[in-house]
Amino acid sequence: MKKVPHRLYLTEDQMPKQWYNLRADMPEQPDPMLNPATLKPATEEDLYPVFCKELAHQEMDAETRYIDIPEEIQEMYKIYRPSPLIRAYNLEKALGTPAKIYYKFEGNNTSGSHKLNSAIAQAYYAKKQGLTCLTTETGAGQWGTALAEACAYFGLDLTVFMVKVSYNQKPFRKAVMQTFDANVIASPSDTTNAGRQILAADPNTGGSLGCAISEAIEKAMTTEGCRYVLGSVLNQVLLHQSIIGLESKIAMEMLDEYPDIIIGCAGGGSNLGGLIAPFMQDKLTGKADPRIVAVEPASCPSLTRGKYVYDFCDTGKVTPLARMYTLGSGFMPSPNHAGGLRYHGMSPILSKLYHDGYMEAVSVEQTKVFEAATYFAKYETILPAPESAHAIRAAIDEAIRCKETGETKTILFGLTGTGYFDMTAYQAYHDGQMNDYIPSDADLQKGFDGLPKVD
Amino acid sequence: MKKVPHRLYLTEDQMPKQWYNLRADMPEQPDPMLNPATLKPATEEDLYPVFCKELAHQEMDAETRYIDIPEEIQEMYKIYRPSPLIRAYNLEKALGTPAKIYYKFEGNNTSGSHKLNSAIAQAYYAKKQGLTCLTTETGAGQWGTALAEACAYFGLDLTVFMVKVSYNQKPFRKAVMQTFDANVIASPSDTTNAGRQILAADPNTGGSLGCAISEAIEKAMTTEGCRYVLGSVLNQVLLHQSIIGLESKIAMEMLDEYPDIIIGCAGGGSNLGGLIAPFMQDKLTGKADPRIVAVEPASCPSLTRGKYVYDFCDTGKVTPLARMYTLGSGFMPSPNHAGGLRYHGMSPILSKLYHDGYMEAVSVEQTKVFEAATYFAKYETILPAPESAHAIRAAIDEAIRCKETGETKTILFGLTGTGYFDMTAYQAYHDGQMNDYIPSDADLQKGFDGLPKVD
Repeated sequence: MKKVPHRLYLTEDQMPKQWYNLRADMPEQPDPMLNPATLKPATEEDLYPVFCKELAHQEMDAETRYIDIPEEIQEMYKIYRPSPLIRAYNLEKALGTPAKIYYKFEGNNTSGSHKLNSAIAQAYYAKKQGLTCLTTETGAGQWGTALAEACAYFGLDLTVFMVKVSYNQKPFRKAVMQTFDANVIASPSDTTNAGRQILAADPNTGGSLGCAISEAIEKAMTTEGCRYVLGSVLNQVLLHQSIIGLESKIAMEMLDEYPDIIIGCAGGGSNLGGLIAPFMQDKLTGKADPRIVAVEPASCPSLTRGKYVYDFCDTGKVTPLARMYTLGSGFMPSPNHAGGLRYHGMSPILSKLYHDGYMEAVSVEQTKVFEAATYFAKYETILPAPESAHAIRAAIDEAIRCKETGETKTILFGLTGTGYFDMTAYQAYHDGQMNDYIPSDADLQKGFDGLPKVD
Repeated sequence: MKKVPHRLYLTEDQMPKQWYNLRADMPEQPDPMLNPATLKPATEEDLYPVFCKELAHQEMDAETRYIDIPEEIQEMYKIYRPSPLIRAYNLEKALGTPAKIYYKFEGNNTSGSHKLNSAIAQAYYAKKQGLTCLTTETGAGQWGTALAEACAYFGLDLTVFMVKVSYNQKPFRKAVMQTFDANVIASPSDTTNAGRQILAADPNTGGSLGCAISEAIEKAMTTEGCRYVLGSVLNQVLLHQSIIGLESKIAMEMLDEYPDIIIGCAGGGSNLGGLIAPFMQDKLTGKADPRIVAVEPASCPSLTRGKYVYDFCDTGKVTPLARMYTLGSGFMPSPNHAGGLRYHGMSPILSKLYHDGYMEAVSVEQTKVFEAATYFAKYETILPAPESAHAIRAAIDEAIRCKETGETKTILFGLTGTGYFDMTAYQAYHDGQMNDYIPSDADLQKGFDGLPKVD
């Protein structure tokens, strides 16, 4: 066993030069996306009005196992990567667990999260195609900030539709995005047909990622030289985010370690899909058999209580249909503070893997998440984002189980980002004002009732 | 010339095991602190009621060149250190400068700044002495957050007096400190005699670091088992912060580089004193002759427009007298957004070095600082704290001069922290609502009129 430092950073030479495409090793592929007009499988060309060509290609490419990361993207990755693999010595000690806890920390950049990994790639390909502007949605604001950074760097205009509840809870997120010259609009807004329809139905809605997606797509499709980009859910995003898992695996190999359990928070699946990619490859190819655990909020439990069916990716029902675990695109999550996890669906790749038994899922309640976040902050001196703290909660629970059983398991979790813009939520937790909302079966049924009929 | 990575992290083995005490190499020592009652040089014992013993000793120790960093402190340093030395390739390219720009980035921890380096040391020594609580002041909130983290880690109670203007401008800073169980009070407050006196004179004052210091000292001296700690100005703080410069120098040596110019922002001097320490050693001992530049806000220009005289370190006039560059302890700075630089005085060590011609100082206006901050953020993807951005401004100005002269100078500056809690100020800048306040000679004279008479 090698001496394990608190923080391990790869050198630039050790950084991955290729992304890993998990689909190439899946024994069964996720079901194809369907064109909502024809209900036939969508083609790459069907996606061109929405995505730039290279990204449409990556979205459909299930064969190419390794895809070269363009030099320009590698160069920008080097500005903030590699991210550290951290051994949580202090947390282990505080818990008194025999488990070894590692976490991959993606918060050391101004977007405050892993989202920058895909934002850079998507902005790069758009610029390369000669486009001049992008639109997107953002929940917690991390994706919007990441994309604003990437667009500022590559010189693209950007309009961000920000889920209204996050827009109000995180007043300074807007200012950060504006620092990078983004145009930020609270969603639902009166600037799109999709937004106006949702507002007409419920003027007081806090919005949702699904709804903001509808607005961003509409804006992109009605603006010259503009395309839409998405920070999660999509196959292309999981591809770009594989950098997280690839770096983690190289670092763990340097330490002669291999995780018994890999844990990630799951909203749309971008972090989880990226973190687990090369470990899932081992599992799919029979080289190793780690447990892989998705953690979602009890308030928005797409994997643990959703249905594995075809659904729209957005509330406005303009996207292709994807087969995924979903609560129904009409499901409007409660104003849970983990804005980045308030999505009705789940990455089709992860949905398929979960459906086929390759991974587990747990849901956790908000106050238990903030309890873990606060505990973690004290011992590891990083203030986690509420989204990331879902994974912390599950990792702590696993470590406590190890304490009870005496097992020396190796746990790896993804710490996706920092909580500097989530202090309203932390304050609510400190003040005992935080509620745990768990949707009833009847609440969920309303979402299911709106599912599209696909035979 | 070795290949220079974007970010260089030392390994744990390469991290310094000793702090460097700059005083040991100064040809002339700073003038001694004076007991305000007797106007005689203060002794180590005079400091015991305020500081814990080991810190009082470090404060007075001008001889010991290298001081071992206790194992427990080294362990906690490893949680967030080493900090990276970053080559600003993107900034260089954007500026079109032949200069090589390096920066030491201290913002990768939850306090968001270098302040944690001394907070850990001060909390450790207090705990070791058996104390149970600490008090302090904070301007920008970074020191308070750092100390809250350190106190949570070592199990000490903490009361933080936060400069009122920062308390109002940074509403979420309080929540972060509370996450680490600190008791945070806006200063001036009605909880101390010093605060009540200042409020009586000016009920609408935004406060100042000097005033918050008075309150914190009073609270410490009237509470059992309690001592006061300070995040800047003091000799002990510069000692602890030498870790910044020591790491920087090791990293630059690995790259076969040596800075021609070293730039740091200067409020009380903690970052600047730490960053320059080993380079100043080279200068004092004739081994090298880098330019060393302090950057201060034009609104609080202690080095560039202050007097080098004995003055109180606080507004309430309870501290020992220190000979330093000062605007007078009664000088009340304008509500400049760089709260961490709103201090009337300057580290006595740095004051002496400046007075003796070993370093330069420049002052910069606030809008020019935010212009540099925004520019830097776009190319280096780090959102800087306004304090840190003073150094960025000066570094960019030097790099532009290199472009004009064609000189390939090597610039090293300290990027002390992140600006996540400064979005009110960034928003004001975006909205064109930021004012540059420069005190008139008459304004400064008011501060000088209040200086103590010491012959």
